Amino acid sequence: MEQHDGTFPEIAPWASPVARARISQVAADLGGLWADLSAGGVVDAVEAALHGHARQFDDEGIVLYAGTNVMSEAARRVAEAPVGGRPSMGWPGEKYQAGLDRLDVLEVLTPALMARLVGARFAEVRSHSATMSNLAVYTALTEPGDTIAVLPERAGGHTSHHAVGAPGVRGLRVVDLPYDVDAYDVDLGALPGFLERERPRLVVIGASLLLFPHRVAAIAEAVSAAGAVLLYDASHMAGLVAAGRFQRPLAEGADLLTFSTYKSFGGPPGGVIATDDAALAEKVSDAVFPGLTANYDAARLAPLAVTAAEILDDGGTYADRCIAVARDFAAALSEEGFTVAGQGRGFTDSHHVAVDVAALGGGRAAMARLAEAGVYLSAIGLPWQADGEPDRGLRIGTQEVVRRGLGEPELRQVAALMADLLLRDADPATIRKAIARIREEARRA
Amino acid sequence: MEQHDGTFPEIAPWASPVARARISQVAADLGGLWADLSAGGVVDAVEAALHGHARQFDDEGIVLYAGTNVMSEAARRVAEAPVGGRPSMGWPGEKYQAGLDRLDVLEVLTPALMARLVGARFAEVRSHSATMSNLAVYTALTEPGDTIAVLPERAGGHTSHHAVGAPGVRGLRVVDLPYDVDAYDVDLGALPGFLERERPRLVVIGASLLLFPHRVAAIAEAVSAAGAVLLYDASHMAGLVAAGRFQRPLAEGADLLTFSTYKSFGGPPGGVIATDDAALAEKVSDAVFPGLTANYDAARLAPLAVTAAEILDDGGTYADRCIAVARDFAAALSEEGFTVAGQGRGFTDSHHVAVDVAALGGGRAAMARLAEAGVYLSAIGLPWQADGEPDRGLRIGTQEVVRRGLGEPELRQVAALMADLLLRDADPATIRKAIARIREEARRA
Repeated sequence: MEQHDGTFPEIAPWASPVARARISQVAADLGGLWADLSAGGVVDAVEAALHGHARQFDDEGIVLYAGTNVMSEAARRVAEAPVGGRPSMGWPGEKYQAGLDRLDVLEVLTPALMARLVGARFAEVRSHSATMSNLAVYTALTEPGDTIAVLPERAGGHTSHHAVGAPGVRGLRVVDLPYDVDAYDVDLGALPGFLERERPRLVVIGASLLLFPHRVAAIAEAVSAAGAVLLYDASHMAGLVAAGRFQRPLAEGADLLTFSTYKSFGGPPGGVIATDDAALAEKVSDAVFPGLTANYDAARLAPLAVTAAEILDDGGTYADRCIAVARDFAAALSEEGFTVAGQGRGFTDSHHVAVDVAALGGGRAAMARLAEAGVYLSAIGLPWQADGEPDRGLRIGTQEVVRRGLGEPELRQVAALMADLLLRDADPATIRKAIARIREEARRA
Repeated sequence: MEQHDGTFPEIAPWASPVARARISQVAADLGGLWADLSAGGVVDAVEAALHGHARQFDDEGIVLYAGTNVMSEAARRVAEAPVGGRPSMGWPGEKYQAGLDRLDVLEVLTPALMARLVGARFAEVRSHSATMSNLAVYTALTEPGDTIAVLPERAGGHTSHHAVGAPGVRGLRVVDLPYDVDAYDVDLGALPGFLERERPRLVVIGASLLLFPHRVAAIAEAVSAAGAVLLYDASHMAGLVAAGRFQRPLAEGADLLTFSTYKSFGGPPGGVIATDDAALAEKVSDAVFPGLTANYDAARLAPLAVTAAEILDDGGTYADRCIAVARDFAAALSEEGFTVAGQGRGFTDSHHVAVDVAALGGGRAAMARLAEAGVYLSAIGLPWQADGEPDRGLRIGTQEVVRRGLGEPELRQVAALMADLLLRDADPATIRKAIARIREEARRA
């Protein structure tokens, strides 16, 4: 290889000062490796990073981050197949490549299972992520310059709904839906006038924080009357929707459903688009391939099919536990003195819980302090925050702790430790040890 | 779960008759499983599909398909990490999620290695595929309605360069570059007039079949004079480019380089964008995140970093072998009586070989017959075919057989067997046994 002067390259000199400082620190830690670069050295550095992360998240910490999960043993076993590098382009029977007949089983079985789980006629499973699934819907149903209407960021509208994300790739104009803070939902009274005024081609609901179901039927009626199409992004709710333990968006009137497969759904990374409408299904399928994929990565479909089948077998037990544990955890946090969202409505109908920590320095500060103590989650905007106000909330999801066998008693201990840390100023190192102990005891149980 | 009537759902009723027939056949084979659905049954079906495919491709067949490869042992070992479901959004130091510091190492080390390998200042490694990398470039550098100029399909222009693919997602007008069939390259004489007439914002070169290097310096000069930007898609050539054994597109004048990481590069699925220009790098980075990704799937970066380090360590040996074996195989096919492209120029300067099989029924028929005999590759258009003519070529890549330890002697046997099958009408089942024997003997050696 060519000579180099031993200096670690700049990664993103345009990034913010705090990002550049962190990148420089990581680069400095890698300085010795870089000066005497070898495959063995890189393997060691990569393994150290993976093992360090696994110890934090898989062994010692409590992961309450809502946008993650761990796959089941059975799903993990079939996830190691090296078929990800075997492109299989086109429908079975007309593949661009030869000899892929055996993989056709994955391409037929997986969408059938996904469609059945979410109560749809059709499911498109080949997009790499829910962000790409959303972009496929935009591509199929809009032209550049069209308007789409989405939930405001502070009400859980995802990046892939906003102009900075996938809609910007399609060249769309994005407007925020009117929002009713008290209802935790789209403002039904303002909606018809808004649709009349803005004329969106597509309306996107389904939030990154969703404590209570959307009133899909009423929203769908207004959207349909305005000649628009309704997309429900169930990325966070997919596991509950699939288990029949949250609303069924298509049955309630949404035209399309997209979702992520690794959050509450509990499978590998990936995105799904489901619909009952064959014409819509064909359009989004064409947008996924050949629009957005060549090799869709068949390795994802094996664990996805297994995860879907496990949800069918499970009969809703896991989803019920996620919701029950979330409700009890929310109550415990409230009893400890936290300001928990949704108090008047039993806190949550899903596996999500939201805490308003504006009085404690805001979401980012609380998230960082909790991470020092081995509790991992994220900050989030809350519907009642002002324009431009930093995220005032903490978002919690119970989908991973439940899968790891933790329940109400353990989460009540976690709530008390969070209060010690954030309300009573305890030392993060002490809390961290207590958190690790909870994990260890759960493993032994 | 809800009741269902036991009928396997339709997957894609809008697909072609041949596709619908194949899908129905697969669905019928799954009928027993579907009627009595269980997670265990799905695990069995998925494992049977994966194992059946692995036996064909990994154990018994000869994979000459140019768009695939197998990862090294070391890369495979770090590819099992379940961090794919751990979104890590934003630059290190300003992550949306907490506690991901250990993964920062992957985000800093991997782009540094990739940039060094391809001789670039910057490398963006977070896109899920080269198709997405190309879409990120389109998003960063064009507006909907702009024109881009690409290689004609029959000259190896990829789907993700054409209107049916990623440019259509961005809403671009796509025109074919003038092509010089004899030079296997863009028509340099016609290029300036074409650029003057069509005014593309972006010109894309780098083909899915690339026997000889592009004359990048001359193309870049014309593109730059026309005020456009030059993108070189090295998806197929990346392993050779990284090893310094094919042209160095950025050094020769391309503004941007994109590539796939699992073909000749030999790593996991994924896409990279490299450039020397900080302003371009920033724009494409913003298009990748938050434009096209939320969770970029960190599990990909571990084997990618290891693969990159192995290419550095290897010093070009693997790339040299890929090219040498391709040249000898091309000569052997020619000696056997096949019409091999590039005869006057030593057949190939890369790991690609192309055979014109128009006289043998065309590329698709030859591909299907070879697959029956355990030889897996794809049909491809050839620059001299007429508009609308079906693909008249077979495309061959040596990147996988070389990694599996096959060399000139084994490939000469394969050439003879291909001639037996396609020129002398031998029985596919007989050839298949001989092919499996070659693999078995190579394993024992």
